[in-house]
Amino acid sequence: MIRISLDLMGGDFGPDVVVPGAAKALERHPDISFVFYGLKEQCEPIISRFPKLQEKSSFRDCELAVRMDEKPSQALRRGRYVSTMWRTIEAVKTGEADVAVSAGNTGALMAMAKFCLRTMAHIERPAIAAIWPTLKGESIVLDVGATIGADAQQLMDFALMGGAMARALFAVERPSIGLLNVGVEEVKGQEEVKEAGRLLREADLDSLTYFGFVEGDDLGKGTVDVVVTEGFSGNIALKAAEGTAKQIGEYLRSAMSRTLLAKIGYILAKSAFDMLREKLDPSKVNGGVFLGLNGIVIKSHGGANAEGIAAAIEVGYDMAKNGLNQKIDSDLKKYHAKRLPPIGPEAA
Amino acid sequence: MIRISLDLMGGDFGPDVVVPGAAKALERHPDISFVFYGLKEQCEPIISRFPKLQEKSSFRDCELAVRMDEKPSQALRRGRYVSTMWRTIEAVKTGEADVAVSAGNTGALMAMAKFCLRTMAHIERPAIAAIWPTLKGESIVLDVGATIGADAQQLMDFALMGGAMARALFAVERPSIGLLNVGVEEVKGQEEVKEAGRLLREADLDSLTYFGFVEGDDLGKGTVDVVVTEGFSGNIALKAAEGTAKQIGEYLRSAMSRTLLAKIGYILAKSAFDMLREKLDPSKVNGGVFLGLNGIVIKSHGGANAEGIAAAIEVGYDMAKNGLNQKIDSDLKKYHAKRLPPIGPEAA
Repeated sequence: MIRISLDLMGGDFGPDVVVPGAAKALERHPDISFVFYGLKEQCEPIISRFPKLQEKSSFRDCELAVRMDEKPSQALRRGRYVSTMWRTIEAVKTGEADVAVSAGNTGALMAMAKFCLRTMAHIERPAIAAIWPTLKGESIVLDVGATIGADAQQLMDFALMGGAMARALFAVERPSIGLLNVGVEEVKGQEEVKEAGRLLREADLDSLTYFGFVEGDDLGKGTVDVVVTEGFSGNIALKAAEGTAKQIGEYLRSAMSRTLLAKIGYILAKSAFDMLREKLDPSKVNGGVFLGLNGIVIKSHGGANAEGIAAAIEVGYDMAKNGLNQKIDSDLKKYHAKRLPPIGPEAA
Repeated sequence: MIRISLDLMGGDFGPDVVVPGAAKALERHPDISFVFYGLKEQCEPIISRFPKLQEKSSFRDCELAVRMDEKPSQALRRGRYVSTMWRTIEAVKTGEADVAVSAGNTGALMAMAKFCLRTMAHIERPAIAAIWPTLKGESIVLDVGATIGADAQQLMDFALMGGAMARALFAVERPSIGLLNVGVEEVKGQEEVKEAGRLLREADLDSLTYFGFVEGDDLGKGTVDVVVTEGFSGNIALKAAEGTAKQIGEYLRSAMSRTLLAKIGYILAKSAFDMLREKLDPSKVNGGVFLGLNGIVIKSHGGANAEGIAAAIEVGYDMAKNGLNQKIDSDLKKYHAKRLPPIGPEAA
């Protein structure tokens, strides 16, 4: 049984979408049980429409819900201990749940998760890992926006955590890791990326294969299982790719409705277009994973529909079932046991 | 008459593609004249196939061509004064040409352009500006990889230069400018982006409208005319978007050939698909503009076909015709004339 704590109030639509999402996930994975955190008046009527879900869940009424536009510091002040978001996370800390899922605002969720769960030993900063659809299947990209900037050691930590996640998600023994970089030779800066490359080469880990540098267009190609970068460029890359996918969708729609022949062609090829839409459907790969905390937290896209919420829950389900945090923990321990005391500027 | 110096040896295919590209550009713009730089033996037989082009061009035989995989420092050592690339740029310096175009390797081209032309007064670092297709038309994005990292004043310079380019290219009087940022609130770092925002607000310029921060998905939406960022994230965003477009193209191709009905649909809707292909054709928006140098240099994609080369030449044509560098120069002067002596940490 995988026990999932779920924030019913998160996202743009709250329980109207989160509860049906949970029902969908349960249908596909009958070995899930839920702990729901919500505001009773709003949630109970909705939950009562899903008798099977009701059977496999317990409901905890909370004092308040964090708003989507609330600043992290404000959310923490107002919502610590008492909000649906906080209590969803806390259920992982107390051991009541194996994984926490919320579609609430990212900044608040990360702030609360850090405050409540704390970072793992050896990890300075948590990261948000995204699952990226590629021509070969899926890759993991991190950090997509937990923090901005990262030094070489933090990039190394991201690689270790991303590698463990790839093993949990893709069932590969030694996932390949690439460091995101620009192709232009001999440009100044990003010394930390070069240094991280050196650390990865020298670490010579059993848990992953270091591929080298990759560029922005390697993301969609699926060149490596895990792409490591700091949160600013990771977030920009993720949103630029999402934006491009939407843009092409718009082009396609307008092209297909322009002439009668195109419309007929569209109808004939509808199954093909449906397949394409399926491929591009953001709800299919919904769920950012917070890595590096003492507990697994999954962030669903705020605008997700029920299918998207179900996808985020299923990411959490997979992560818990495959022992994500145990894998990270054991990889970190192995790395640090092998590691020599730092030499050079780091030692200062 | 717009005089264009063209490096015939640049790109993956050299004169085989660059010469036909020049012929295409000339067909559409009869007021172009060319100065060609190449290796005589390879180029002359190709040029002689285009009599109209031959009439409107002069050919300069050079000692050597810079290789696509050459490091900038190596290219500079080997190719300064004597390579086709160097001499193409030098023609702008001596006033023989209004704009230089090369499909040669980016790093070498930038190194030579900097060395030969030098940066404009008040400009510390040149930038590469890309023309980005959007749902509304086109935007300018810079820097897409000239250098990594930029402080607030450099981002401000990019905004001024990008604004001048937008006025030259789009015929808008006060182009809107956005600073690329991540949406996550209260994250640490990227102080330089916030500071650049302050500089832009306070500068209160006639030449541009400061919009505020934009995110990665605003690129494809065309939220602003000019998106400003430093070269690392700009390059990653550009390549991530290109990669996504290719990826979706692949999906579409495989979806449309999967069933007989889909194939028939594809044939009926072919004009619509052609329109889409046109929209997504990278050769249509080929041409990175080097901004901030005492002369205009256009970098074509190395893998461009003749149509792509023609597009890059036409970008150069537009820039020269519309007085890009005069616009940048006058905007910079106005800004610096208004500017008060720096206060605070910058003054130190």
